[in-house]
Amino acid sequence: MVMTATRTERDTMGPVEVPADRYWGAQTQRSLEHFDIGRDTFVWGRPVVRGLGLLKKCAALANAELGLLGADVAEAVVQAADEVARGDLDEHFPLVVFQTGSGTQSNMNANEVIANRGIEILGGELGSKVPVHPNDDVNRSQSSNDTFPTAVHVAVVLELVERLHPAVDDLCAALDAKADELGDIVKVGRTHLQDATPVTLRQEIGAWAAQVRDAQADVAYAGERVRALAIGGTAVGTGLNAPAEFGPLVAQHLREVTGQPFHQAENLFVQLASHDGLVAVSSSLRTLAGALMKLANDVRWLASGPRTGIGELVIPENEPGSSIMPGKVNPTQSEAMTMVVTRVFGNDATVGFAGTQGNFQLNVFTPVMAHAVLESIRLLSDACRSFTEHCVAGLSADRGRIVAHLEADLMLVTALAPHVGYDTAAAIAKQAHRDGSTLRDAALASGAVTAEDYDRWVDPQAMTRPG
Amino acid sequence: MVMTATRTERDTMGPVEVPADRYWGAQTQRSLEHFDIGRDTFVWGRPVVRGLGLLKKCAALANAELGLLGADVAEAVVQAADEVARGDLDEHFPLVVFQTGSGTQSNMNANEVIANRGIEILGGELGSKVPVHPNDDVNRSQSSNDTFPTAVHVAVVLELVERLHPAVDDLCAALDAKADELGDIVKVGRTHLQDATPVTLRQEIGAWAAQVRDAQADVAYAGERVRALAIGGTAVGTGLNAPAEFGPLVAQHLREVTGQPFHQAENLFVQLASHDGLVAVSSSLRTLAGALMKLANDVRWLASGPRTGIGELVIPENEPGSSIMPGKVNPTQSEAMTMVVTRVFGNDATVGFAGTQGNFQLNVFTPVMAHAVLESIRLLSDACRSFTEHCVAGLSADRGRIVAHLEADLMLVTALAPHVGYDTAAAIAKQAHRDGSTLRDAALASGAVTAEDYDRWVDPQAMTRPG
Amino acid sequence: MVMTATRTERDTMGPVEVPADRYWGAQTQRSLEHFDIGRDTFVWGRPVVRGLGLLKKCAALANAELGLLGADVAEAVVQAADEVARGDLDEHFPLVVFQTGSGTQSNMNANEVIANRGIEILGGELGSKVPVHPNDDVNRSQSSNDTFPTAVHVAVVLELVERLHPAVDDLCAALDAKADELGDIVKVGRTHLQDATPVTLRQEIGAWAAQVRDAQADVAYAGERVRALAIGGTAVGTGLNAPAEFGPLVAQHLREVTGQPFHQAENLFVQLASHDGLVAVSSSLRTLAGALMKLANDVRWLASGPRTGIGELVIPENEPGSSIMPGKVNPTQSEAMTMVVTRVFGNDATVGFAGTQGNFQLNVFTPVMAHAVLESIRLLSDACRSFTEHCVAGLSADRGRIVAHLEADLMLVTALAPHVGYDTAAAIAKQAHRDGSTLRDAALASGAVTAEDYDRWVDPQAMTRPG
Amino acid sequence: MVMTATRTERDTMGPVEVPADRYWGAQTQRSLEHFDIGRDTFVWGRPVVRGLGLLKKCAALANAELGLLGADVAEAVVQAADEVARGDLDEHFPLVVFQTGSGTQSNMNANEVIANRGIEILGGELGSKVPVHPNDDVNRSQSSNDTFPTAVHVAVVLELVERLHPAVDDLCAALDAKADELGDIVKVGRTHLQDATPVTLRQEIGAWAAQVRDAQADVAYAGERVRALAIGGTAVGTGLNAPAEFGPLVAQHLREVTGQPFHQAENLFVQLASHDGLVAVSSSLRTLAGALMKLANDVRWLASGPRTGIGELVIPENEPGSSIMPGKVNPTQSEAMTMVVTRVFGNDATVGFAGTQGNFQLNVFTPVMAHAVLESIRLLSDACRSFTEHCVAGLSADRGRIVAHLEADLMLVTALAPHVGYDTAAAIAKQAHRDGSTLRDAALASGAVTAEDYDRWVDPQAMTRPG
Repeated sequence: MVMTATRTERDTMGPVEVPADRYWGAQTQRSLEHFDIGRDTFVWGRPVVRGLGLLKKCAALANAELGLLGADVAEAVVQAADEVARGDLDEHFPLVVFQTGSGTQSNMNANEVIANRGIEILGGELGSKVPVHPNDDVNRSQSSNDTFPTAVHVAVVLELVERLHPAVDDLCAALDAKADELGDIVKVGRTHLQDATPVTLRQEIGAWAAQVRDAQADVAYAGERVRALAIGGTAVGTGLNAPAEFGPLVAQHLREVTGQPFHQAENLFVQLASHDGLVAVSSSLRTLAGALMKLANDVRWLASGPRTGIGELVIPENEPGSSIMPGKVNPTQSEAMTMVVTRVFGNDATVGFAGTQGNFQLNVFTPVMAHAVLESIRLLSDACRSFTEHCVAGLSADRGRIVAHLEADLMLVTALAPHVGYDTAAAIAKQAHRDGSTLRDAALASGAVTAEDYDRWVDPQAMTRPG
Repeated sequence: MVMTATRTERDTMGPVEVPADRYWGAQTQRSLEHFDIGRDTFVWGRPVVRGLGLLKKCAALANAELGLLGADVAEAVVQAADEVARGDLDEHFPLVVFQTGSGTQSNMNANEVIANRGIEILGGELGSKVPVHPNDDVNRSQSSNDTFPTAVHVAVVLELVERLHPAVDDLCAALDAKADELGDIVKVGRTHLQDATPVTLRQEIGAWAAQVRDAQADVAYAGERVRALAIGGTAVGTGLNAPAEFGPLVAQHLREVTGQPFHQAENLFVQLASHDGLVAVSSSLRTLAGALMKLANDVRWLASGPRTGIGELVIPENEPGSSIMPGKVNPTQSEAMTMVVTRVFGNDATVGFAGTQGNFQLNVFTPVMAHAVLESIRLLSDACRSFTEHCVAGLSADRGRIVAHLEADLMLVTALAPHVGYDTAAAIAKQAHRDGSTLRDAALASGAVTAEDYDRWVDPQAMTRPG
Repeated sequence: MVMTATRTERDTMGPVEVPADRYWGAQTQRSLEHFDIGRDTFVWGRPVVRGLGLLKKCAALANAELGLLGADVAEAVVQAADEVARGDLDEHFPLVVFQTGSGTQSNMNANEVIANRGIEILGGELGSKVPVHPNDDVNRSQSSNDTFPTAVHVAVVLELVERLHPAVDDLCAALDAKADELGDIVKVGRTHLQDATPVTLRQEIGAWAAQVRDAQADVAYAGERVRALAIGGTAVGTGLNAPAEFGPLVAQHLREVTGQPFHQAENLFVQLASHDGLVAVSSSLRTLAGALMKLANDVRWLASGPRTGIGELVIPENEPGSSIMPGKVNPTQSEAMTMVVTRVFGNDATVGFAGTQGNFQLNVFTPVMAHAVLESIRLLSDACRSFTEHCVAGLSADRGRIVAHLEADLMLVTALAPHVGYDTAAAIAKQAHRDGSTLRDAALASGAVTAEDYDRWVDPQAMTRPG
Repeated sequence: MVMTATRTERDTMGPVEVPADRYWGAQTQRSLEHFDIGRDTFVWGRPVVRGLGLLKKCAALANAELGLLGADVAEAVVQAADEVARGDLDEHFPLVVFQTGSGTQSNMNANEVIANRGIEILGGELGSKVPVHPNDDVNRSQSSNDTFPTAVHVAVVLELVERLHPAVDDLCAALDAKADELGDIVKVGRTHLQDATPVTLRQEIGAWAAQVRDAQADVAYAGERVRALAIGGTAVGTGLNAPAEFGPLVAQHLREVTGQPFHQAENLFVQLASHDGLVAVSSSLRTLAGALMKLANDVRWLASGPRTGIGELVIPENEPGSSIMPGKVNPTQSEAMTMVVTRVFGNDATVGFAGTQGNFQLNVFTPVMAHAVLESIRLLSDACRSFTEHCVAGLSADRGRIVAHLEADLMLVTALAPHVGYDTAAAIAKQAHRDGSTLRDAALASGAVTAEDYDRWVDPQAMTRPG
C-alpha cells in the first residue's frame, strides 16, 4: 500500500485527512469514504463538473455586484471556477452519483475545490478557509438545494444543444440525402409485415426522417423547460440568505456565459421539490429513442438476407459479422442503436420513478435523475453519429430485388377496388394467390377488367402519388 | 344455452351468422369469435366509439362533397354515424382491444353498423350491402390504417379537453382556495425529511398547484401533437384511392363538429407507421401523475398521526378507516390517487414499448396504445375530481401543532449564518441538539449572538419572505 | 332520475342510505360515493370476490372451532360466504380498485354482504347487525390488513392454477404437435436477421415451446411464493385480537376447500408491509410475456409476405385483413398476442413501482397490485388460448419456398471452415455473394475444395444434427 | 496529436493498423472505430473480461482433450486466457457495450488478444495468426453466439455469488444484531402512515430483514437459471462445427475452475434466441431493490425530525448535511440506497424490453442486457455494504420519544374491541381524539370499561405478543 501525503482539512464535524495534491476538502473526503458505490463508472463526468464551474463563476460575479464578496476574493473564485468549467480540475471531482440526494456533497466538492484553488491564487494556505471560505464565500447566497439542480439544468441544456441536436440534425440530413439519391425507386409497401400497396423510397426514408424530427421537436420543447433555474431559492425555495436580485443576476450571467436563454424559475419551491423538467426531458428522449428504434429496425429488416430475407436495402460491410460463419455481414449499427434505445428506456424508467419521490420541500433523487438524463443524451448522440456515418451514409438499394418484389405484389389489386368494388377485387387477389399467378392474369381471367383498363389503373408509380 | 335468432352476413371469406338484433356484420362477428381476450373489461368504451362515429360522419360529408357518395346514401350514413357518435348504438360495438393491431376490425365494426343502420333507414335489407356498402360506401376513400388512428386522436383530444383539463383545473382552483384560506400560517419546511427553514402554507400548497400546472402545460403541448390526423393517408400513407382533398375536408368537418383545431398531418406516412403523438401524450400524463403523487404523498404525510406523526394538516373523515382498529381515519383519497399514479405509470410503459414496435408502413399496436392512453386520462380525471372533492376541499390545519413544531425547529439557525458564519452557526445548532435546549438559549450561551440580535435575525415569518 | 328504494345502514360514522335490494352496508356505500374512479371497468371481478368468499367461509369455520362464533351464526356466515364464493352475489360487490390502499372497503363489503345475508338466513332484519355483526362476527379475528392480501393470494393462486397454466400447457402441446407434423423440414437458420446455418423446423418450433416452458417454470416458482398467507397477522402483523391458532386453521381450511397448498406465512409482518409475492408473480408473468412475444414475432415474420417477405410459414386466414386492400391476410393473432405482451409489461411496471411504496407496517397499494396481476394472468391465458386455437393449430409450411431459401443460403459455407480454415471459407462466401453465384460454384472455383469434398461436407440436413 | 507506433493486423476484410503495444487484432480495431458510443463509461469491466478469459481457458482445455488443438497451442492459449481471467490484460479490452448485438466483437477481442499473446508465448510474430489463429484455434468449436452468452452467465453467477449475496448477508446480519440490541422496545405501529397498534422494534427490524431475505431467495432461484450455459450451440444452436462432447466438457472445466455448478443448457437454441435467464435475474434484483427501498424509507422516516418528524430512530451523523443550514444531519445513506433502487428499476426495464426482441435463432441485445444486470448487481452490493456500515451499524433508538408516542397512541383501543365490541370501542377512540384526552380517560368516561379492565386489557407490551 502506497502512503500518500495528506493535509488536514476541517468541517463542522472535525478534522479529516485529504490527499495533499488535491484541492478538495473535508466534506468531499467524507463523501468519498462513505459512498463507495459504483466507483468508477458513476463518477460525475464533464457535463456536471462544467455546470458547477459555470454556476459558481456566475454566482461569484453576482455576489460581487451585490457587494457580498470583495473584489479580490471574487476574482480568485471566478478564475478557479473558470478552471473547473474548462475541465482543468476534473481530477479534483472524485465523487459518485450515489451520495446525498440533494447533491450537497458535489456542491461542496465544487465549493471546496474552488475555495482552495482561490486561496492558492491569493497566496493563502490550503485548508485554512482564509481568505476564501467554501460556504461563506463560494457558496454565498446559495444552498445545494438550489445550486445543484441549477448546475444540472445548465449541464442538460448544454448537452442537448451542443451534442444531441447537432447529431440528430446530421442524421436527418443524411437521410434526406439518401432520399434524394434513391428516392425515385418505387417499391412494395408493407403493413402488418405483409405486402401492401407501393411507396417510393423517398416516402419510406422521408417518413423515418420526419418521425425523428417530430421527436426532436419534443426534445426541444422539453429543453425549454429546463432553462428555468432554481437559483435564488436556497434551502427550501424561500431564498433565505440570498438577496432577491441574486437569482436573476446569476441567470443573466449564465445567459451571457453560455449563450443559452436561462432564466430564474417562476416558482422556486417547485424547482427544489420536484424535477419534472428532467422528467419531461427524459420522456422526450424516450420518444426520440422510439423513433430511432423504428428507423434502425426498418433498415435491418429491409437489409435482411442477403438471399432469404427482404434484401431491398444493402448496408455497408463494416466488419466481419461472425466468428464462426465466414463471410457474414450483420446490421451491427442497427444493433448498437437499438441497444442504446433499450438503455434510454431504462434510464427514463429511473427518472420517471425518481421524479415521483419528492417530499415536502425537496426531491432527494436529483443526482440519479441528472445522471440518467445525461447518459441518455450522450448515448443517443453517439449512436446517431455512429449510425449516420457507418450505416446511413453507405446505404444502397438492390434495384433488381425491389423490382421483382413489386411485380409480385398482389396488393396492387387495391387500385382496382374503386372501379370493380372491394368484393370483386378481393376475389381477384385471392385467385392469384391460390394459383400463384400474376395479378394481371387473375384480373383478366375474372372478366371484370380488360387488359387496357388493368394497365391504366394498375400503375405502381402512379399509386405512390395519388390525387 | 339460449338460441338467439341470427341473420346471415357475408364478407370476402363467406357467410357468417350474426345475432339478428345487432347491426354488425360478418367481420365484426369473426373478430368476436377469434379474439376472446379480456372480455368484458377490454371492450371499447364511449370515447373510441364516439370517435369512430364522428369520423365516419365527417368522411361521409367529405365523400358527398367530392361526388363519391350519392346524397341519399350520404344522408343515411351521416344519420347512422351521428347515432354512433351519440352513444345510441354502443351495444353494437362488442369488440375488444386485443384484435388486429391496425384496429381494422373496429373500423369494420363501425362500417358494418353504419351500413346496416343506413340500409335500414333507406328501407333496405340488413346484410344486403345495398344501398350502403360497408367498404365501398362507409369506408369510401379510407383505410383502417388512416381511420382508426384518426378516430383515436379525436377520442384522445376530446377526452383531454372535456374530461382531464377541467378536472385538473378544478383541483388547482381548490388548492388555490385552500392556500388563500390557510396561507398565512408559517410552518417548518422540510428537506431530506428533516426539519429545515420555515415556509408558509401558501408556499407549500402553492408549490403543489404550480407543479401540477406545469405538468398540465406539458399535457396541453402533447395534446396539440394529436390534433394532427392520419386521415387521407389510406393504406400506406400515399392516400391511394382517396382524392387529395378528402383528408383536409374530413379534418375541416371534424373541426366544425367538435370545435377542436384538428388538421390533416403534414406527413401521413409517419401517422400510420408510428404513434409518437400518443407516446407524447402518455408521457405527459406520466409527468402529471408524478406531480399528483408528490401532492398526495405530502398531504398524507403532513396529516400523519394523528398523534405520533407530523399531524400538521387534518384530512376529512370520510369513512371508518379500519375493520379492526376502531376510530381510525386513514388518508384514503391519497391512497386512491397514488394507486392511480402507479397505474398511469404502467400504462405509459405499455405505450412507450408499443410505440417502438412499428415496422415499415404501419405500427400494429394502435389499439393497445389507444386504450392505455384513454384509461390514463379517465383515471387521472376521476382521481383528481375525487381528491378535490373528498380531500382538498376539506383540508384544515392543526395550528397548535404547527406552532409547536416551528418553535422547536433548530434550522432557524440558518438565519444566523450570514451574521456569524456557517461554522459558528453550526456549532450553536449542534449544541442545542445535544442539550435538547432551544436554539435561542444555545445561541446566547455561545456568546456569538446577543438577545437583541437573535430576536431581530431569527424571525420565522420574515424567513419565509426573503429579500 | 329513478328513485330507488333504500334502507338505512349504520357504521361508526352514522347512518347511510343504501339501495334496499342490496346486501351491502354503510361502509360499502360510503366507498361507492367517495371513490368514483374508473367505474365500471375497475370493479373487482370474479377472482377477488371469490377469494373473499372462500376466505370468509374458512375464517368462520376457524372461529367456530375456536369457540369465537356460535354455531348458528357460523353456519349462516358459511352459507352466505359460499354464495359469495360461487358468484351468486356478485352484484353486491360494486366497489372499484381505487379505494383505500389496504382494501379495507372491499373487506368490509364482504363483511357487510355476508352479515346481512346471514341475518336474512337467520330471519333477522337487514342492517340491524343482529345476530350477525360485520366486524365483530364476520371479520372476527381478522383485519383488512391480513384478510385482503390473503384473499388476493387465494385469487392469484387459483387463477394461475385454473386458468394460466392450462392455457400455457395447451399452447406448448400445440407447438409440440406442430413440431411433430413439420419437424423434419430443414431450413435456413437466421441470426442478426441474416441467413445463417440450417436448422430443422422441429428445432425452431421446439425452441419456442422450450422458452415458454422455462418461463412457465418461473411462474410456478413465484406461484409458490403467494401460497404463503397473511391471515392471522390482523392489524400490524402481531395478530392482536386473533388467537394464535386462527391463522393456521384458516390456512388449513383453505387447503381443504381449494386443494391448493396454502399455509400461513412465516413472517406475518412482511405479508402486510410488502407484497413481494405479487411482485415476483408479476415479473414472472413478464418473463412469460417476453417468451410469447418472441414466439408471436417469429411466427409473423416467418409468415411475412406472402410474396415479398420470408413466407416460409403460412398462417390461417381467419378474417379479411384490410378494409381497403382486398384479399389481404394479416397475422392478427400475433398482433393481439404482442399487444397483450405490452400490456403485461405495463402491468408489471405498475406492480413493481407500487411494491416499493410500503411504509412501516403496511403497503397501501394492495388493490392496484392485485388488479394488475390478475389482469395479466387473465390476458395471457386468453391470448394463449386464442393463439393456440386460431394460429398455431392452423400453421403450415411453404415447402417450396423453404427449399429455395436453403439452396440459396451462403452460410452453408460454415461447414467448410473446419476443413479449409475460416479465412478461405470467408473468401469463398464473399466471392459467391459478389457474383451472385452458388456457394458450390464459388467453392469449386476457389480451388480449395473438390466437388466430392464439397458434397460430403456441405450437407444441410447433417448440419442440423451435429456430432 | 501523438503518433502511436502501429502494427498491421488482418481479417477477412483486409489490413488494419492497430497500436503496436496492444495484443488486439483487426476486428477489435474495427469495432473501436465503428462504435464510438458511450466511451469510456461503457467499456466492459472486470466481470465480463474475466468471464471471457475463464471460458476461453476451459474451451482450450476441452479442445485439447478432443484432439482439436495441439498441446503447445493449447498450453499457450490456456496461459494467455489465465492472464485475461486474472485481469493482467484488461487494457487490451477496449470495446464498449454498444457494438454488435451478439457480442461478436468482444468475443473476437478475446480471441485476438489470446491468440497474439499465445503467439508471443510461443515466440511467433504478432498479427501472423501463426501458430495461434484467433478463429481456427482460440475460437475452435465455438461461435460468438454461444460463447458470449456463456461468458456473461459465468460473469453474472460469479458476481452474484462473490459480491451480492455476501453483501446482502452482511446487511441482514447487521439488522439481526440491531434487532437483538433494540428489540425489546415496544413502540407505535403505523398503517396508512397513521398510528396503529403496537409492535416491538424486533418485529419492525425483523420484518425488514425477512423481506430482504425473501427477495434474496428469489435472486438465488434466478441465479440457478443462469448456470445453464449456451456453450456447444455454436452459430444457431445446432452445435455445427463443435463435437457433441465439447459443450459438456467446457461446462465441466468451468465447474472445476470456478467451483460453481455450471452445466450445458438442455436446449441450446433457447440460450441463443433468448436470454430469459438474464431477465429472471434482473427481475429478482428488482424485487430485492424494492425490499431495500422499503427498508431505507422506513429508516429515514423513523429518523425524521429530529424535532418535528417521527424521530424514533437516530441515524449516524456521517457528514454535514447542508451547505446552507448549519448543523443539519440528513439520511444520506437512505438516499443513496433509494437512488440505487431507481437505477436498478431502470436497468430492469432495459433488460425486460431487450429480452423480448429476439428474432429466429438469436437475440441481439445480449451486451446491453449483460451490462445492465451486472451494473445492478454491483450497485446493489455496494449500496448494501455502504448502508450496513454507515447506517445500520450506527442506528440507535430515542427511547423517550418512543415511549411518549406509545402513550399517546389511540389505537391501543383495539384491545378493547373484543370485549366491548367494535362500535363502542370506536366511540371511545373518537371521543379521546375530539377531546385531546388520553384513551384511558375516554374509556373510563364512556362507562363501558372499568379501570381494572382497562389496565388488564390495554397492555401495549402484551399487544405485541398475541396468542
